[in-house]
Amino acid sequence: MVDIATRVYNHKWKIDPIVRSLIDTDFYKLLMCQSVFRNKRDTQVTFSLINRSKSIRLADLIDEGELREQLDHVRSLSLTRGESTWLRGNTFYGKRQMFRPDFMEWFENLRLPPYHLEKIDGQYELTFEGTWPEVMLWEIPALSILMELRSRAVTGDMGRFELQVLYARAMTRVWEKVEKLQPLQGVKIADFGTRRRHSYLWQDWCVQAMTEGLGDSFAGTSNCLIAMKRDMEAVGTNAHELPMVYAALAENDTALRQSPYDVLADWHEEHEGNLRIILPDTYGTKGFLSGAPDWLAGWTGIRIDSGDPATGAETAIKWWTERGEDPTQKLVIFSDGLDTDKIIELHSQFAGRVRTSFGWGTLLTNDFRGLTENNALAPFSIVCKAVEANGRPTVKLSDNPNKAMGPADEVARYKRVFGVGEQVAMDVVV
Amino acid sequence: MVDIATRVYNHKWKIDPIVRSLIDTDFYKLLMCQSVFRNKRDTQVTFSLINRSKSIRLADLIDEGELREQLDHVRSLSLTRGESTWLRGNTFYGKRQMFRPDFMEWFENLRLPPYHLEKIDGQYELTFEGTWPEVMLWEIPALSILMELRSRAVTGDMGRFELQVLYARAMTRVWEKVEKLQPLQGVKIADFGTRRRHSYLWQDWCVQAMTEGLGDSFAGTSNCLIAMKRDMEAVGTNAHELPMVYAALAENDTALRQSPYDVLADWHEEHEGNLRIILPDTYGTKGFLSGAPDWLAGWTGIRIDSGDPATGAETAIKWWTERGEDPTQKLVIFSDGLDTDKIIELHSQFAGRVRTSFGWGTLLTNDFRGLTENNALAPFSIVCKAVEANGRPTVKLSDNPNKAMGPADEVARYKRVFGVGEQVAMDVVV
Repeated sequence: MVDIATRVYNHKWKIDPIVRSLIDTDFYKLLMCQSVFRNKRDTQVTFSLINRSKSIRLADLIDEGELREQLDHVRSLSLTRGESTWLRGNTFYGKRQMFRPDFMEWFENLRLPPYHLEKIDGQYELTFEGTWPEVMLWEIPALSILMELRSRAVTGDMGRFELQVLYARAMTRVWEKVEKLQPLQGVKIADFGTRRRHSYLWQDWCVQAMTEGLGDSFAGTSNCLIAMKRDMEAVGTNAHELPMVYAALAENDTALRQSPYDVLADWHEEHEGNLRIILPDTYGTKGFLSGAPDWLAGWTGIRIDSGDPATGAETAIKWWTERGEDPTQKLVIFSDGLDTDKIIELHSQFAGRVRTSFGWGTLLTNDFRGLTENNALAPFSIVCKAVEANGRPTVKLSDNPNKAMGPADEVARYKRVFGVGEQVAMDVVV
Repeated sequence: MVDIATRVYNHKWKIDPIVRSLIDTDFYKLLMCQSVFRNKRDTQVTFSLINRSKSIRLADLIDEGELREQLDHVRSLSLTRGESTWLRGNTFYGKRQMFRPDFMEWFENLRLPPYHLEKIDGQYELTFEGTWPEVMLWEIPALSILMELRSRAVTGDMGRFELQVLYARAMTRVWEKVEKLQPLQGVKIADFGTRRRHSYLWQDWCVQAMTEGLGDSFAGTSNCLIAMKRDMEAVGTNAHELPMVYAALAENDTALRQSPYDVLADWHEEHEGNLRIILPDTYGTKGFLSGAPDWLAGWTGIRIDSGDPATGAETAIKWWTERGEDPTQKLVIFSDGLDTDKIIELHSQFAGRVRTSFGWGTLLTNDFRGLTENNALAPFSIVCKAVEANGRPTVKLSDNPNKAMGPADEVARYKRVFGVGEQVAMDVVV
């Protein structure tokens, strides 16, 4: 029996929106947004989309009109009453009223600022300018729109049956990954896959697979909308954009050297417990840890997001030990390019030595490798970063030079200031 | 948006019927039924369900009330106007009016006769008695009901998500089989999987997978309902029940020895071309072929349904050659326990020497091996056969003693009459 009402309802959409909610974003964006709202509200920033996989010519794949429609749709969104209630009333990391009334009031009135879009050499130049707290909320929707428009461009040519087989295979693959992880005792894995997901519906399915298959080992999702709808934990702490913008704002080399610690000092004042997670790699993990104030060693854990993850964890364990901390009480969160084998390997390698947790991203929510002709749905590496703050360029070094960003002269200056020497280059897959 | 009408509509069903049409059956049953209607209409027969896989205790798995409901539902069915129109008006094997007006009139008025059901030692004893043309039409619905009730018993305990993963895996498996067959030049494969299908919907999906993936290499389905709905060829010729009943009716050993040829003489009169396919193994292929009249060598082909298939085909090629026929013009249909590897092997082995075609059954429409705990959905070997005709027991020898049927003394007599010596026993998987 055809459901005429649903059919007519579906026809009414001018577009099929990819992002239907302002909280279809990573939880840490909201935490950081509140922090920025408190501490650096008037900073003028520019965020820019950067496709590291130049071979994927997004502007050839994705129609500009469709992209504009999707971006315009996001600009029409505001927080719904239910979303606001959830953010105000829900417990996050065991804490009530994580989001303060002044921030919530600002958020409830927020519309995302304009975007600037140009086609250059087969790629889209997509930039956002304005005050930091509003511009920063473009990052995740911009990425997930581009990812999903690419998925739609590829699947648009496929027949109903081909699509069914495609998703059957993708489901089977995800489920086999889940089964591979089931034997791991006490492992904690969260979904960090919003930004480079195949699609919203697909991410939602993957999260359900994790819930069903991993039970207590599934620690939650970084996606607030899914966390709300599925009644699960929203997880995430902070990201490189904080030290990158703080660093760009530094007036001289001394202030620059201090800036990553200023970020965490502001964070320290606001958060406790499992939200006190150090992200040490923005300007080199080694230098960051050796120069860190002692109160930082008292933080709960560390997130390893570039470089060789085992080396990163060993560095942290050594550092904690040197600072008189007990590593077995500390948490190491791995979040860089994870897939099952790497999770299994790291879990067994560090079991008993340190608490571990895994933020599984692209290869959870977008592993369609080999499932289409020409591998047209393989994930690729796209980011949306703060490139300027109050007129100054930002810089990221990271523990992998292939993830470095910024003008060459500034990169050189940062390397000098932070004492970063030779680094090991690693492929960036996703 | 919930489709209330559909939800209410679904609630209205007292049961969810498994067999919803009298033509949800194998095409060859209808061809044979017409032949029986013409030649042996008043023969009294008993058909009986035989579960060769004793370890599957069907009566423990399947509720007797549910089984009766399903069987009762089949007895409430009659040919719809659309089904009748299709049978009368469609072209089968290139021929119009395959079903004659007198047969169609009879069929249009048919309701299936009563069944007799008892539970014995964990199994169901299910028998059907009456005139041959009506009783014989119970075979396929009875088998597909038992198969699907078993599937439902196993899947009934599974969650919505588990089910989705189960079918995703099963779909992936079928599609990988299809892809494995795609490179075969000029292969012809038909769906023969109605009787032991996982479910009706699943068979229908498998047929669509074959259509989509194999194009012209997919020769059609034996299932009339699917053939009608999907606008494809309905295929199949004849089965062991004809020689088994003809043999049981034979008054003496001479008549018995002659009976398999009588069957084909009746068939010869009615059909031509690709419907003239010899099924030689009921009482041993070797003896059947060596004693066959010359006009049989002029038939289009042979179907190999037991014993080693390559040996069977070689025997046929030798026989045709001896009778002055050109084997390259002949058709060998393989239909016993096929799966992709066997199809690929036989296709390459006989390419250029004889035309081949494959009737792919259980491992097309019911390959859920290893997909559930305790392998609870693995296919098993169940048949529904004529066991008596006009009060006399039937006998089947076949080319595999594990497929033999009938009382021991009669089996011995048939072996003597048909000169069947030592046979190679082969496992019967499905």
